[in-house]
Parts: sequence; structure tokens; C-alpha cells
Amino acid sequence: MKIIMNEFDYIDKYFRPLTNKFALNLKNDAAIYNHNSSFDLIISTDTLAEGIHFFGDEDPANIAKKSLRVNLSDMAAMGAKPIFYNLSLSIPKNKARQFIPKFAKGLKEDQETFDVKLIGGDLTSSLNHINITITIFGETLNGKSVHRNGAKIGDCLYVSGILGLSKIGLDNYKSNFNEFQEAKRRYLLPQPRVDLGISLKNIANSMIDISDGLVQDATHLAKNSKLTVELNLCKIPLPNFKQLNKKLILNSALYGGDDYELLFSCNTLNESLVEELSTKMNLKLTKIGVFKKFKKEYLEFKNNNLKPKSSYLHF
Amino acid sequence: MKIIMNEFDYIDKYFRPLTNKFALNLKNDAAIYNHNSSFDLIISTDTLAEGIHFFGDEDPANIAKKSLRVNLSDMAAMGAKPIFYNLSLSIPKNKARQFIPKFAKGLKEDQETFDVKLIGGDLTSSLNHINITITIFGETLNGKSVHRNGAKIGDCLYVSGILGLSKIGLDNYKSNFNEFQEAKRRYLLPQPRVDLGISLKNIANSMIDISDGLVQDATHLAKNSKLTVELNLCKIPLPNFKQLNKKLILNSALYGGDDYELLFSCNTLNESLVEELSTKMNLKLTKIGVFKKFKKEYLEFKNNNLKPKSSYLHF
Repeated sequence: MKIIMNEFDYIDKYFRPLTNKFALNLKNDAAIYNHNSSFDLIISTDTLAEGIHFFGDEDPANIAKKSLRVNLSDMAAMGAKPIFYNLSLSIPKNKARQFIPKFAKGLKEDQETFDVKLIGGDLTSSLNHINITITIFGETLNGKSVHRNGAKIGDCLYVSGILGLSKIGLDNYKSNFNEFQEAKRRYLLPQPRVDLGISLKNIANSMIDISDGLVQDATHLAKNSKLTVELNLCKIPLPNFKQLNKKLILNSALYGGDDYELLFSCNTLNESLVEELSTKMNLKLTKIGVFKKFKKEYLEFKNNNLKPKSSYLHF
Repeated sequence: MKIIMNEFDYIDKYFRPLTNKFALNLKNDAAIYNHNSSFDLIISTDTLAEGIHFFGDEDPANIAKKSLRVNLSDMAAMGAKPIFYNLSLSIPKNKARQFIPKFAKGLKEDQETFDVKLIGGDLTSSLNHINITITIFGETLNGKSVHRNGAKIGDCLYVSGILGLSKIGLDNYKSNFNEFQEAKRRYLLPQPRVDLGISLKNIANSMIDISDGLVQDATHLAKNSKLTVELNLCKIPLPNFKQLNKKLILNSALYGGDDYELLFSCNTLNESLVEELSTKMNLKLTKIGVFKKFKKEYLEFKNNNLKPKSSYLHF
């Protein structure tokens, strides 16, 4: 016996178990959140399109996790605690049956890891490709979120973790070499720095997550703060790969994107707090630059003849 | 000189002008809304996929308006006042340049018509087809939104406007007959009943907008209220078409969908209030059924041998 499922069955079976009370059991046209006014509700949306952000042949559970994690990373970048999210999934008819159960399983696992719940959304068919849009909601105390425009002259630029892994994982996606396994995992499954983002809310004065590559995202901080940021290329935390030359690894860090590490500015007086936090969280936090008065370009490389170029652009 | 625009340029030029202060000028990873706790924030998401919800050759301004209006209709169904929305647009690289400016123009016009603002979102490329996801936010006084589960035994079922137009417009999309022009307009550009929804919040005890066809959406109300709804087919407000037989018109109303009229239940004591509202708003509000104790089926046709069947399903 072949069981044909329609969208209501899928929602009933796979998505309703993921909801909290605000979703009203997914029985209404909308979700309701009665928010306490001493908190700010932080709202962000990120879409993953098949063939653009993912291949399509990955485990659907990992595609689900990646969709949620890139959104969680946006909450981290604002210093917000993620609380719930909204999902729209468009998927070709012939893929739904195989894809949705595994996709929902991935969501369920990450909901537990990151303590967030689904509150609603939409499920529709599409002609050829999968499209996933998540809107995520987080909260901070009133006025306490971290923005992109707070860096001051003399502030340090810090980055979490190491950069370039995800791009190297993508470039070597079909390789079976052991050396690339961690990079491939990182490409498939980014690690949003949610706890770090929350811990930084009283330390960082501007922050962004690295989704488009270090150069582009550091430029966003500088441009919004109306300053020039000087990157020290020697200080950028890079992975080691025997098979790859240093220049290629550096370029992956500068322009590769999809790292989802946090990039933030802070006053030099806060450097010791950053070091303490790094020790406490057992996570590398590296000073890689400094903000200066704006002159000509928003981003410069320190003591280096290389000129910054563009990262990936959709259009 | 050919000017190449990337997503930041498009956002800067076309979407930033549409935002309000909560969007922080689209310069951050998220939008912030500090909500007063005597209000509920109502959140809903609807996606339109090319080839599924629209052809793709329509005026992009109308596609934009339809995307927004189907979401506004969800706010209407909850009795909520729409306040802002979030947009994700995935579009093939080669279509962006032509599509986005017109699309944004459509949004701008409807923002003025419906008094809502964009607060954020995502813009990405896609391989073949356009995918549009809007998350809309509305508000009601604390606990004052209308749900799908409030109908009681003996309550009347009402519907706004006339039904079936949109399906007839779709079926005759390529026809040039004058007779079908209004139906085609309605298919392209639904009319969300926002003011009606707000006015009904103290009159209706359950409500839904008709997106999937009268039968399916009336079934939702009955099922969630754990009752049977008896539809009087003779009372359903239908359009006139000389070229179409009555049965086809009735079927378009029952199963066609995309009407975005409001379907609601209310106590018989409120019938005079509904009539007053109909006169005041100059909008047809027709009693088409009654709720009864549940027996066997959630939906029955009164005095009719026809059996209800299914509406359009995505999967």
C-alpha cells in the first residue's frame, strides 16, 4: 500500500511536533507572541536555494541544520538569544516524500541543541528546486543588541575560531582525502557562535557574522562605522593543509565565506575581557586588525601589497 | 555604459526606501521591534513559487502585490492590524535586472495602500525560478485575535464578497473576452479584507481566509471547532458569466481557491451586527451555512446529493 501524503499530513506528522505554544498547534493563519516590553524582539531571515547555497544531494537533515544555523548565526551577531523561528519550504513534488522526514529530523535535533522552537510557516511545491526560508526571532534586553555601526577609532577587530575551512571544504567536496573531512563537515554544518554572541553583548561595540568572507564582512563593519579597518594578514587564524599552499588558504579565509565565525570590534580596554572569554569558552578569539580614521578605502591590508578584492555576489 | 548591480545595490536602491525605523536601515543582521506588552504580535508566512502560484510572465509589480496581499489576508483572518513584513526573494541571475525594480514598485504602492512597511529579509539568486517568501507581522489587543476553533453549535457561517472569480480568471487567463477581465484581475490581484477582519474581531468567533477553496477552508473551521458545518449551496454568492455553466461556476467557488475572501462563524445574535457592517462597508456578507454537532463528516452540503471533494493540494 502506497500512502500519499499532502501538505497537511506532512505538517501534522513532521512539523507540529516541533512547535511550542506560540504556534497554536499550526492550526491558525499565524503565530502569536505576546512579548514583554522590557525585551527587544530580534527578527532575521535567511534563505538557502538549491544549486546556490547547497548542492541538493546532501543529507536533508544537514540541509535543515544549515538553514537553521545560518539564521542562528545572525542572532549571535546581534548578541541575541534565539527563541523561535518560522519556516517556509518550497520543494518539487517528487522530492517531498524522501526529503521532508529527514529534513524535519535535522530540525528536531538542532532545536534541542540550540533550544529554539518552530512557530509556523508555509510548505508549498516548486517546479525544479528546493528553496528554504527561515525567519528567526531572538531577544535581548531593551536596547542591548549589538549592531554594525559602533566601532570607534583605535578599537581592535577580533574574530572567533579559524577562517577558510568552509570554502576549502566546498572546493574539495568530492575529495576523499582524510585531510579535508573536517573542512567538508564545516561546509555542510556551520557552527553558529550563539553563546559567544550573547557573552559579547557588553564587550563588543560592533559585530557581524562572517557569511560573505572576512574582507566583505569587515568592510560592512567599517563602512557602517564610517571608519577604515586595517587587517593584519599575518594574524588571521588559518587552518593547516599539507596539500594546499598558504596563499590559497589565506584567500579562502579572506573571500570564501560561509565560515559563520563572529567578527567584532571592541575598545582596547576590553582586550583582557576578550582573552578571559576565550579561555572560559575554549574558543580562539584573535585580534586581526584595528579601526582607524576613514581614508579612501573602508578596508586596507597592513604592510602588504595585496589589494582587497570582491567576495561572492549573487547578482 | 552597462551598470552591473549586485544584491547590495538592489537593496540600497529598491528596498531601503521601503523600510521603517525598525529595519535599522537594513544595515544589520536583523530588525528590532520593541513591543508593548498590552498587544499581541501576530506573525505569518506565505510563499509564492514561480510556476506554482504565478506564471512568471505577469507584471512583477503585480507579483509583488499578490505576495504581500496573500499575507495581508492572513492578518485579516486573525482580525489583526498588519504593521510590517519581512521579504525573501530568490531570483535567477538573468531575471534580476528586469524584475526587481518593477517588483519593488509594486511593493511600494501596496505599502501605501495597506499602511505596512518592510523590516528586512534576504535577497539571493536561484537556478531557474523565482521564489518569494513574506513573513508578515500584525497586532491585536492582548488575546483579541480570532482563531479557527471558536465556532459553536448553532452558529452561522458567513462569507465576504463573491467566490470563484479567481479560479475562473486563472482558467481563462489567455482569453481576451471582456467578460473575463475582472476575473483575471482578481486572480492576479486579490483583495485582502483587512478592514473587514479588524471590524469582525468582536463579532466572529472563528475565521479563516479562503485560499484553498470554500470547501477546504470551511472544513478547517469545522474540524478545529470539532463540529460539522452544513453548507447551503443555493446561498453561495457566485459571479455571472454568460459563457460558463452554473455548475462550473459553483465548482470554482467550492474548490477553486485564491479568493482571499473571509469565511467566519458567529452567534445568531450577531447577525444584525454583520448586516450593519455589510452596509457600512458596502461589501456583501452572506450567510451560507450553519454549524451543527459533529456527525461523520466535518462538512456537508444541505439538501444536495453532491459529495464534497478535495481542493488543490501541493503534494
